[in-house]
Amino acid sequence: MTKITFDEIRPYDLVLMGRVAIDFNPLDYFKTLVESSTFKKYVGGSPANIAVGLARLGKRIGFMGRVSDDRFGEYVVNFFEKEGIDCSHIKPCENGEKIGLTFTEILSPTESSILMYRNGIADLMLDPADIDEDYIANSKALLISGTALAQSPSREACLKALEIAKRRGTVVIFDIDYRPYNWKSADEIAIYYSLVARRSDIILGSREEFDLTEALIQPGADDKQTAQYWQNLGAKIVIIKHGKSGSTAYTDDGRQYQVKPLPVEALKSFGGGDGYASAFLYGIFEGWDIRSCLEFGSASASMLVASHGCSADMPNAAAVSDFIAKAKAEHGDVFSSEL
Amino acid sequence: MTKITFDEIRPYDLVLMGRVAIDFNPLDYFKTLVESSTFKKYVGGSPANIAVGLARLGKRIGFMGRVSDDRFGEYVVNFFEKEGIDCSHIKPCENGEKIGLTFTEILSPTESSILMYRNGIADLMLDPADIDEDYIANSKALLISGTALAQSPSREACLKALEIAKRRGTVVIFDIDYRPYNWKSADEIAIYYSLVARRSDIILGSREEFDLTEALIQPGADDKQTAQYWQNLGAKIVIIKHGKSGSTAYTDDGRQYQVKPLPVEALKSFGGGDGYASAFLYGIFEGWDIRSCLEFGSASASMLVASHGCSADMPNAAAVSDFIAKAKAEHGDVFSSEL
Amino acid sequence: MTKITFDEIRPYDLVLMGRVAIDFNPLDYFKTLVESSTFKKYVGGSPANIAVGLARLGKRIGFMGRVSDDRFGEYVVNFFEKEGIDCSHIKPCENGEKIGLTFTEILSPTESSILMYRNGIADLMLDPADIDEDYIANSKALLISGTALAQSPSREACLKALEIAKRRGTVVIFDIDYRPYNWKSADEIAIYYSLVARRSDIILGSREEFDLTEALIQPGADDKQTAQYWQNLGAKIVIIKHGKSGSTAYTDDGRQYQVKPLPVEALKSFGGGDGYASAFLYGIFEGWDIRSCLEFGSASASMLVASHGCSADMPNAAAVSDFIAKAKAEHGDVFSSEL
Amino acid sequence: MTKITFDEIRPYDLVLMGRVAIDFNPLDYFKTLVESSTFKKYVGGSPANIAVGLARLGKRIGFMGRVSDDRFGEYVVNFFEKEGIDCSHIKPCENGEKIGLTFTEILSPTESSILMYRNGIADLMLDPADIDEDYIANSKALLISGTALAQSPSREACLKALEIAKRRGTVVIFDIDYRPYNWKSADEIAIYYSLVARRSDIILGSREEFDLTEALIQPGADDKQTAQYWQNLGAKIVIIKHGKSGSTAYTDDGRQYQVKPLPVEALKSFGGGDGYASAFLYGIFEGWDIRSCLEFGSASASMLVASHGCSADMPNAAAVSDFIAKAKAEHGDVFSSEL
Repeated sequence: MTKITFDEIRPYDLVLMGRVAIDFNPLDYFKTLVESSTFKKYVGGSPANIAVGLARLGKRIGFMGRVSDDRFGEYVVNFFEKEGIDCSHIKPCENGEKIGLTFTEILSPTESSILMYRNGIADLMLDPADIDEDYIANSKALLISGTALAQSPSREACLKALEIAKRRGTVVIFDIDYRPYNWKSADEIAIYYSLVARRSDIILGSREEFDLTEALIQPGADDKQTAQYWQNLGAKIVIIKHGKSGSTAYTDDGRQYQVKPLPVEALKSFGGGDGYASAFLYGIFEGWDIRSCLEFGSASASMLVASHGCSADMPNAAAVSDFIAKAKAEHGDVFSSEL
Repeated sequence: MTKITFDEIRPYDLVLMGRVAIDFNPLDYFKTLVESSTFKKYVGGSPANIAVGLARLGKRIGFMGRVSDDRFGEYVVNFFEKEGIDCSHIKPCENGEKIGLTFTEILSPTESSILMYRNGIADLMLDPADIDEDYIANSKALLISGTALAQSPSREACLKALEIAKRRGTVVIFDIDYRPYNWKSADEIAIYYSLVARRSDIILGSREEFDLTEALIQPGADDKQTAQYWQNLGAKIVIIKHGKSGSTAYTDDGRQYQVKPLPVEALKSFGGGDGYASAFLYGIFEGWDIRSCLEFGSASASMLVASHGCSADMPNAAAVSDFIAKAKAEHGDVFSSEL
Repeated sequence: MTKITFDEIRPYDLVLMGRVAIDFNPLDYFKTLVESSTFKKYVGGSPANIAVGLARLGKRIGFMGRVSDDRFGEYVVNFFEKEGIDCSHIKPCENGEKIGLTFTEILSPTESSILMYRNGIADLMLDPADIDEDYIANSKALLISGTALAQSPSREACLKALEIAKRRGTVVIFDIDYRPYNWKSADEIAIYYSLVARRSDIILGSREEFDLTEALIQPGADDKQTAQYWQNLGAKIVIIKHGKSGSTAYTDDGRQYQVKPLPVEALKSFGGGDGYASAFLYGIFEGWDIRSCLEFGSASASMLVASHGCSADMPNAAAVSDFIAKAKAEHGDVFSSEL
Repeated sequence: MTKITFDEIRPYDLVLMGRVAIDFNPLDYFKTLVESSTFKKYVGGSPANIAVGLARLGKRIGFMGRVSDDRFGEYVVNFFEKEGIDCSHIKPCENGEKIGLTFTEILSPTESSILMYRNGIADLMLDPADIDEDYIANSKALLISGTALAQSPSREACLKALEIAKRRGTVVIFDIDYRPYNWKSADEIAIYYSLVARRSDIILGSREEFDLTEALIQPGADDKQTAQYWQNLGAKIVIIKHGKSGSTAYTDDGRQYQVKPLPVEALKSFGGGDGYASAFLYGIFEGWDIRSCLEFGSASASMLVASHGCSADMPNAAAVSDFIAKAKAEHGDVFSSEL
């Protein structure tokens, strides 16, 4: 049976690298951003959300990143510290780069879009020189968020961290997290996504994200071909997400597992992915079987789309377990299965 | 007596050029930006505020600028159009440049600071090719905001507009509006501010702004020397602002006039300058004597610092007149004087 | 009669600012650059050639500029020093910028073109902070070469030097020297050329160069209108060059003088302009009447097009005088006239 | 025994990617570049030299690259075409980028240095979109020159070509060819060199170049460790060069071979490496045993350092064989050996 083995004596469970942003979610939603007039600020950005999610689930988390040298950078670090995330490897930028902003337009519970500020952006200034080998060697796992590959020097910081992680036995988790900003071409995306994917132990992405990753390798592949390709290169778990129809996990013992979303009244259509990633990884760190990991992830995803924030609304383990228990009580044990 | 002569048959009173931004003012203020969590969005940016101010005072206003090609750009144009400002010369950017954002930190009624997003900024993409000679020739006056000189191609767009305005008999108003963002050095500031100032009919600035403008010409000049220098080059009115101690207008007939702030309970310490500029210029367009112009400007300034927004709270003429009448009824006619 | 008055006690006659380049002229010429295979290296670049020309004519010359921090930068400074030019204000670049290269294609005595290397170029790195007020105040005149206005920070260095020169009573000479490289648009050219021209005492340019300068002011002007415009703004001498048909000088006493090229067997069609400028200015520094200045300039121009190099072949005063004497002996005193 | 297997029905033997430059070698050498005054122009740049070398040895060669859109770009393409190199995948640049220039300073037969022009450089504009899958699939081998990895978009063009070559069964040759220009940091060099090396079949480099490549992997490795590391990842031949003491080839059958320079009276100390690479690869394409390949490479290297040019002086096969025969007649069969 597929099992990720972690070096249990390492002090950190997971070190993440990539963007931290500030989300501004409208309080007067269900209208366009032209009309929404008041906004609530939250710490955001996919790896930041996952970091908070795992911290609330009790894991020991570190973050390597760059923030702006201003009140907003201060806000992020303060928030992380309150959540118990180690901020020793988060540095302010030196040339006026700003932390990214994400204004969300919530048109309905199922329709949303985002307006991102990512020009002269702080997170992409993470430099190879910022990468501390000991920090990576002190963590059971390293999570690389694909957005961090979009530009230099953050791109090279990730590639350096990857090299170190492989050499020092740190498990590599690649969350593709595609954002169109900052990338120059589809070729660039395919090149750098696949460079990281080919040396990763766990890869998470949507079907569209795997298509981008495989554009130069096997365009038009289906999920099985995708899983096969990366497992041949060493991946142990490949998770392919299909939005509302749920997601599938392929493990390197040749098995595959499916999970469906747990029912919930959604407020917004984003944030679920980061809930999913953090809760799924929590199960992996705990050594759970894959079905349990998937259910935990799917439950957290549902809880997130029902709330206004992302990082601020990450649940703890008891809350996720309760949520699952209630869903199963009502609908039966129908959410996950081995295929 | 100093009197600015306008070509009365021109359809526009004033065309402005420079930044349009979006202000996010905290609703939970009197704390730092780290702690403030909800924000109200307003159209902002000094020339945008002045444009709205004058439009509400009944003037026919046009704007030359660039906005982002997104919901925020749409928001600004919608707002301007509702205010009756001509938007025929506002164009979206083509390479992902974003409209500027200004997050205001209101620590107390007298202490505030701002956190600006001006990387990859839309307004500085105004291009010399955008400048329409007929538009300038159809306006009585052109207002150049100093911030628009900070970078190419907006810098050259201003210098081209200036050349056209001089040739076509359009009165040139220079509002120095210094913002440290985007400038490379004090030399650069001094060079471009003085280039515009030397061909302007009306110049408005604080003592600090005139110091920046004159750094290569007469460092350490006092107000009289400042006024003298620019009047020798052709300026008709030079206004030097001194914050809470009021401001002084020097006219090219050798006279000088002082105005003090009208008493008000302030909420914030910004926005007053744009109220001042719009109401003062209103008086100038109306052909009022300088003292009346100054009083009108000072009254509007006071009204603005007492309100939460800037553009959204620009008063109409009746409101300003009422405000002045009440202040004089209480304190006497003590606010302005010829020195 | 028009006469430029210099402050005779100043130690330098002329300080120049702008590009220094290295010319590579083919030894196997009268073919294309595809075929030419051996090249001779010379110090080049319009203001550098004029500096050498005037130094050989006995004037005290200084230069403000930036060179590459390599053997080629060393070569230029060595050459200048041997020519007696003061190099105290020539600095090496700090970020790998390279001195410009000019490969000349000499197809015939009348047809030539150039292939310039001006990417990441040293001369345009001249910084406003490099400009030394005392140096300008110690020179009778300052020559600004138009190419130096093409990009920041060199552009602002020129504008700062101009401001200082005006304030310190240093005569300003503007050699338009148009090169298409590095400029972004016709508007930019018109804006910056006219900014310098409007404060210059002597302006030299071809008809095409004045057209570029006046594009926003009086497109389609003829020579008289051109001269008139700049003289109204303060120019004392305006020289308009017409290639092989000679050139015309307009002086602010309302007179105009013409000079034709002195006959010579040409080898190449470039270099003449810098010979002309240096020898003409020599006459101006000597206090000669305009006709004599023009003849001296025209003679030097002819000598230059007959030689392989530019800076290396600049003549001394005796050689120019001899050349004029021989031409007049053969053809009569027919080269210059008042119109 | 190690043997590289090529797909013999493919029309091209080798397609190269990377820089083409123009060398300017002084005719008046044995002085510094300050003093050298005449220069001969040659097509240069490591992969260009190797391309010409192999073409003269009778191989069918293609080149993927970018040149300047000017006479110098025309010169390179003309020269390549005369040498029989396919230029169908060499494109001119579109934004004024220039072909690189290399001025060589030949102080003595053993001391030389170079002054490179690589700002705004054409070769690094090779774009992923330029990479033609069929072209790579039609060639037995692909040579990537390390310099092409120094900047985007050329970097991604190489990584795309690498991905395609691996998928289409094209043998990958990596010539590290380190040049300090254009690289940002040692980390960047290590990251991109190792990315290509780990998927290459043949790797050529000096000890210093392998040190740069392995900086994040095994700093301080010796030659055996180096060979071992890359062979574990799939490399069949690893060649480590030690300048005048010769070079060593490690083959994946565990053997190693040494070759020493063949005696010659050197004129200059550069160009040998490209002669070596082309003649060595010729032997590989011919299916020779490694010792013969090494001798052929070493002979060509010696011939190159004895001549003034690089590409222009690449020998044909008969000349290399003659040279070897003469050396062995005089010194015995002492140049190569299995260790």
